[in-house]
Amino acid sequence: MEAKLLLVDEVRLTPILISDPPLLNVQGVHQPFTPRLVVEVVTRGGVVGLGETYGDGVYLETARSLAEALPGRPVTHVNSLFEPVTKAVAGAVAGAVSGAGAARPEAGAGVDASGLRGVRTAAKLRLSVVSAFETACLDALGKTLGLPVHALLGGKVRDEVEYSAYLFHRWAAHPGAGGPADDWGAALDPAGVVAQARRFARTYGFRSFKLKGGVLDPEREVAAIRALAEAFPGHPLRLDPNGAWSVATSLAVARALEDVLEYLEDPASGTAAMAEVAAGTGVPLATNMCVTTFEEIPEAFARGAVRIVLCDHHYWGGLHRTRELAALCRTYGVGLSMHSNTHLGISLAAMTQVAATLPGLTHASDTHYPWQTEDVVTPRPVFRDGRLPVSDAPGLGVELDRPALEALHRRWLDDDGRMRDRDDTAAMRAADPEWRPRRW
Amino acid sequence: MEAKLLLVDEVRLTPILISDPPLLNVQGVHQPFTPRLVVEVVTRGGVVGLGETYGDGVYLETARSLAEALPGRPVTHVNSLFEPVTKAVAGAVAGAVSGAGAARPEAGAGVDASGLRGVRTAAKLRLSVVSAFETACLDALGKTLGLPVHALLGGKVRDEVEYSAYLFHRWAAHPGAGGPADDWGAALDPAGVVAQARRFARTYGFRSFKLKGGVLDPEREVAAIRALAEAFPGHPLRLDPNGAWSVATSLAVARALEDVLEYLEDPASGTAAMAEVAAGTGVPLATNMCVTTFEEIPEAFARGAVRIVLCDHHYWGGLHRTRELAALCRTYGVGLSMHSNTHLGISLAAMTQVAATLPGLTHASDTHYPWQTEDVVTPRPVFRDGRLPVSDAPGLGVELDRPALEALHRRWLDDDGRMRDRDDTAAMRAADPEWRPRRW
Ligand SMILES: [Mg+2]
Ligand SMILES: [Mg+2]
Repeated sequence: MEAKLLLVDEVRLTPILISDPPLLNVQGVHQPFTPRLVVEVVTRGGVVGLGETYGDGVYLETARSLAEALPGRPVTHVNSLFEPVTKAVAGAVAGAVSGAGAARPEAGAGVDASGLRGVRTAAKLRLSVVSAFETACLDALGKTLGLPVHALLGGKVRDEVEYSAYLFHRWAAHPGAGGPADDWGAALDPAGVVAQARRFARTYGFRSFKLKGGVLDPEREVAAIRALAEAFPGHPLRLDPNGAWSVATSLAVARALEDVLEYLEDPASGTAAMAEVAAGTGVPLATNMCVTTFEEIPEAFARGAVRIVLCDHHYWGGLHRTRELAALCRTYGVGLSMHSNTHLGISLAAMTQVAATLPGLTHASDTHYPWQTEDVVTPRPVFRDGRLPVSDAPGLGVELDRPALEALHRRWLDDDGRMRDRDDTAAMRAADPEWRPRRW
Repeated sequence: MEAKLLLVDEVRLTPILISDPPLLNVQGVHQPFTPRLVVEVVTRGGVVGLGETYGDGVYLETARSLAEALPGRPVTHVNSLFEPVTKAVAGAVAGAVSGAGAARPEAGAGVDASGLRGVRTAAKLRLSVVSAFETACLDALGKTLGLPVHALLGGKVRDEVEYSAYLFHRWAAHPGAGGPADDWGAALDPAGVVAQARRFARTYGFRSFKLKGGVLDPEREVAAIRALAEAFPGHPLRLDPNGAWSVATSLAVARALEDVLEYLEDPASGTAAMAEVAAGTGVPLATNMCVTTFEEIPEAFARGAVRIVLCDHHYWGGLHRTRELAALCRTYGVGLSMHSNTHLGISLAAMTQVAATLPGLTHASDTHYPWQTEDVVTPRPVFRDGRLPVSDAPGLGVELDRPALEALHRRWLDDDGRMRDRDDTAAMRAADPEWRPRRW
């Protein structure tokens, strides 16, 4: 191995818009198209590594600064990605978080409209951008060496990774005309949710079910979970209202569902409220909102606010950092699951590779992937028995479908700007101009 | 890269005895010869990876069980080293910890005579053995790929690693005849300690100084540190009595030295006593005794017992786990330094490689290495300005000196059994049959 072959020669950033179904959450509804960013790290050896992250303008701006700093650096040196980023993007981020892409107060206190991941900060943006560069570097390194990414992380401890069905209240179609369509139909009551779950189970074999809550009145969401419990007795069930409930409501839901929930995810917003809920119920609480950075861990763990953390390499700064989070959870006796936001096959491959290395990943991982009808990799991964096999092919084990990438980038170029920043609230207001996020 | 070339073909275990000077500590005195174990992992591709750990009988027995389980497994899969070990060695360890090599009560409550690392447990033994196998696997992998070990851990974040001078009260020679000799002379008072420090500074350029304490009355050790502070004004100074002091004595020493200590290391024994000391002084407390496993972290951090943890890949289960410990320390705002026990060049290379990847390693690392006159690697590493360069050569960057290894193994074979388990207390009693470890 000639060392210079592992130097970064070029970084290509391709913002894309991918079609997304009208899935409902506390912030509103998924847009017809949502932005993602595909990062290609090209080595001097001519190998292309792939990464994927959020594609909103503020992420793209940050990524551009990092892309300029990368050429000449070895793809092996992912630990030091954090330093140049800090320097290079300090300006870009400072501008971005206070600019057009900044947190929208009307979207709910402390909640980032595009990510439902708590307060948006420069540090979080940076980590999400680094995650895609780290993934791309590891993919390029693995492809160069002929080793899967998991082998670059100490090796897999399992051959398959289990995923859960991600159920949503949803409309049959996006409001207005012209958006993407599918044949799932609406799901706005327990029967609709169960039908959706049955199709997920039939098509992909998922055994765990997660319902996105915070959409309907809590008693109606409780009814949906009870219907799921009846349809799938003994299966792990989760409900996640993204912090939309008061402590009292959270406790009432926990009482109503304590016999059937695997865990209750972010019922209330913030560590203090979560700790209060945790103290009042035996139902395990999980989070991808009050623990989203290392800085947030000590207080949340000390207060017993959560019993399960949902890791997400996009949040935590990459695959190595995800493994560090797992070590923290293991040390503190906190369980581990995996979070997902709308994503394509590059991220799914990265999630599967890192998940395969985590001994403590005892809960099925979330994934939006089955909702996506488009992808930039080929062949598309196939869930069987709710699981994905852990690829032993070099790198992430996925190949870029360049015509598909170009078509989705064309859509981004052609967009008039309305879709380039994900804004579920704005999408909802296209249907109901008076709509505001609710709290219960 | 053909995958089968990375499979383990054979594991060679070579117990050795290395000469060691008569360095004093709370347990007694270093034996003339101390046991180490060299692990060679040979791949089907014919590449040999090196690891080094404790060589006492109980470690050797555990290592033999693991060595049998390794052939056919890929050297990339170090994360899963922990599972087969648990299974394979459960019996061996259970026998070993209750057998001849078990903790010696007379050596002081809660202290492992051979390692000064707190209570000896099966889990700790296992981690120390795994660490050598993990290092050997990573060395073999790096040599196969043409990459340094640090690149297999996400890459270095610095080009040099700083080490501290490890000062000891010592005798000029071992009691009795026939042991190894050196020209350092005795150091049993402040002048002797300062002379030793000057020689370390002159020869190796060390700027930080650590004095092993718990040997003389605390006021005499305080005097030695004050003499060092006078001789090396402004240099980082540390004192480590291995938990030999009461809380009151610890606080008195802290008061006497608060203006000159970088940190006070394990003044008292156990998390409760350390927390009490920490509450009573502004001098940072460091440890490699009350935090030596992940299980011990939550209580120690919650009680504020330590402000610096000394990592040690032999304790924590290898280089990946050391990085996880570093992430824990970073998350909880706890500083990081590095511990050393008597070791050779394989371990020094491993320490340097992992240290290079830890952004939070803000204190100079400990090393006994300058005290060792023998080694099994060539060329011997050279400290300049108190630092070692981080090797970018494949693997650990050291080559086995097989004739040297064989000579040291011959010494182990020829030993009548007295040196095969390190026992500083027994060595001390060779000089003074009535000697008992003291506490102040
Ligand atoms: Mg969630
Ligand atoms: Mg110590």
